[in-house]
Amino acid sequence: MKSEASSERAIVRVRDGKVVDSAALDRVVVEAPLELRVGGKPLTVVMRTPGHDEELARGFLYSEGMIGSLADLLFVRRPEGLTGDEADNVLDLMLAPPPVSLGGLGKSTAPQRPAFERSFVASSSCGVCGKTSIAQLAITSPLVQSPLRVSRAILSSLPERLRASQAVFRETGGLHASAIFDAQGEPLAAREDVGRHNALDKLIGWALAEARLPLSAGILMVSGRVSFEILQKAIVAGLPVVAAVSAPSSLAVDLAERFGVTLVGFLRGASMNVYAHAERVVD
Amino acid sequence: MKSEASSERAIVRVRDGKVVDSAALDRVVVEAPLELRVGGKPLTVVMRTPGHDEELARGFLYSEGMIGSLADLLFVRRPEGLTGDEADNVLDLMLAPPPVSLGGLGKSTAPQRPAFERSFVASSSCGVCGKTSIAQLAITSPLVQSPLRVSRAILSSLPERLRASQAVFRETGGLHASAIFDAQGEPLAAREDVGRHNALDKLIGWALAEARLPLSAGILMVSGRVSFEILQKAIVAGLPVVAAVSAPSSLAVDLAERFGVTLVGFLRGASMNVYAHAERVVD
Repeated sequence: MKSEASSERAIVRVRDGKVVDSAALDRVVVEAPLELRVGGKPLTVVMRTPGHDEELARGFLYSEGMIGSLADLLFVRRPEGLTGDEADNVLDLMLAPPPVSLGGLGKSTAPQRPAFERSFVASSSCGVCGKTSIAQLAITSPLVQSPLRVSRAILSSLPERLRASQAVFRETGGLHASAIFDAQGEPLAAREDVGRHNALDKLIGWALAEARLPLSAGILMVSGRVSFEILQKAIVAGLPVVAAVSAPSSLAVDLAERFGVTLVGFLRGASMNVYAHAERVVD
Repeated sequence: MKSEASSERAIVRVRDGKVVDSAALDRVVVEAPLELRVGGKPLTVVMRTPGHDEELARGFLYSEGMIGSLADLLFVRRPEGLTGDEADNVLDLMLAPPPVSLGGLGKSTAPQRPAFERSFVASSSCGVCGKTSIAQLAITSPLVQSPLRVSRAILSSLPERLRASQAVFRETGGLHASAIFDAQGEPLAAREDVGRHNALDKLIGWALAEARLPLSAGILMVSGRVSFEILQKAIVAGLPVVAAVSAPSSLAVDLAERFGVTLVGFLRGASMNVYAHAERVVD
């Protein structure tokens, strides 16, 4: 099975205004569609960098609210009988049937899960696209509550630690990275992807499989900017601190404020802007 | 009507490891949902930076293949009776009825347009998300054919010219920019948005309203990376040259090669990599 994250292409290389090599080889990040099928029916297509596909599928379903625990997902597997690209780019998923209501006799302890039909229309790879009305954007997760504190010095060390984990970015310059750190700055997991939301879904899928959700003691560090879908997924995963190298959007700031997430932007060296819940950032 | 592209938020500013201002004001890029309704029914939600919303709607419908000309869109307007955020974030669209088939008697000259029901499911704000199977990703546009040539010197000047047009980026650091230039490097139009695909959809919507499609003499310059959805939209708009400050993905390179688009990446100063159809880049 191919799962290389970068691939070679022939290029014309121009330096200082001159063609220095008309048949150079350059490595580019691989972007390929992953089709998720539930019960044999296509659910969505995610443009992703191959690798950690099962984590991506799990994290996507979880952050879209289609599963509430690992037990809700009976299996994730490559479909049988496909070959070549198709075998690499399709995953078959099977969800557990929704809990049967017992009326007044008892109460299911299973997490609430939206009906499949609704999820089918609403799902998407970025937490926004594919949704058809503003009402569907509402986040129903609980507030993020965590006594976590992190020092400015530890926060300042995270961009360099994130870069150290970005093997493919160094080759291609074309990937977004996300990593979860603890309050001492130790990395718990790091993922790269051509889509920033995918890198985070892979982390959430990892955490789900490792029974680490909610990630109440985790700090999410992302390589780029922070917009709605990153905050939405961080809130679903219970992450109390989100830090980014670049700028947040207005909606990211507002969601962080409302859901109790500490949001740090422009984290560069010993400088940063804290956009929400600065009480978790200490000396 | 509010349509400001940036907005103020209170932040804690840390410099050199110290809190230098615990109640500073910072401008962030505005990200807000735009709900597109067709015939009163929700079609999709696009997370966008307010401004040029009608262009965005037109360009989105065009690049998703839901309209083939300006005449296919009877109107784009703010719905009546809404107030506040809702009034700013909803657009009512009305499509012309599909051409009636005359059987053997004549042939409609209207462009082919996919049936509405199919588009409803397939549409999305990024050209990928919301699509449910890999088969829906197929691009049916013709090859991009254009005698356009552009010199390396003109290409090298484009990043600076793009930056000059990025008023909101300078304020917030949080926006993607796209612009169309002619072969002499003169800007035809430039747009900014929190979503890179939106900035391009706004340009396509502009070109559609100005009867400039296909943009066979245009060069698209984008501020960031280039992935599937940018190439897909560029191909639909007939753009023969796509240039980017950062890296392309494998799929972007492959689509450019296949559909006849010149793809330039890592365009920085007088250096660049030409990933496909280098014959249009000349001395």
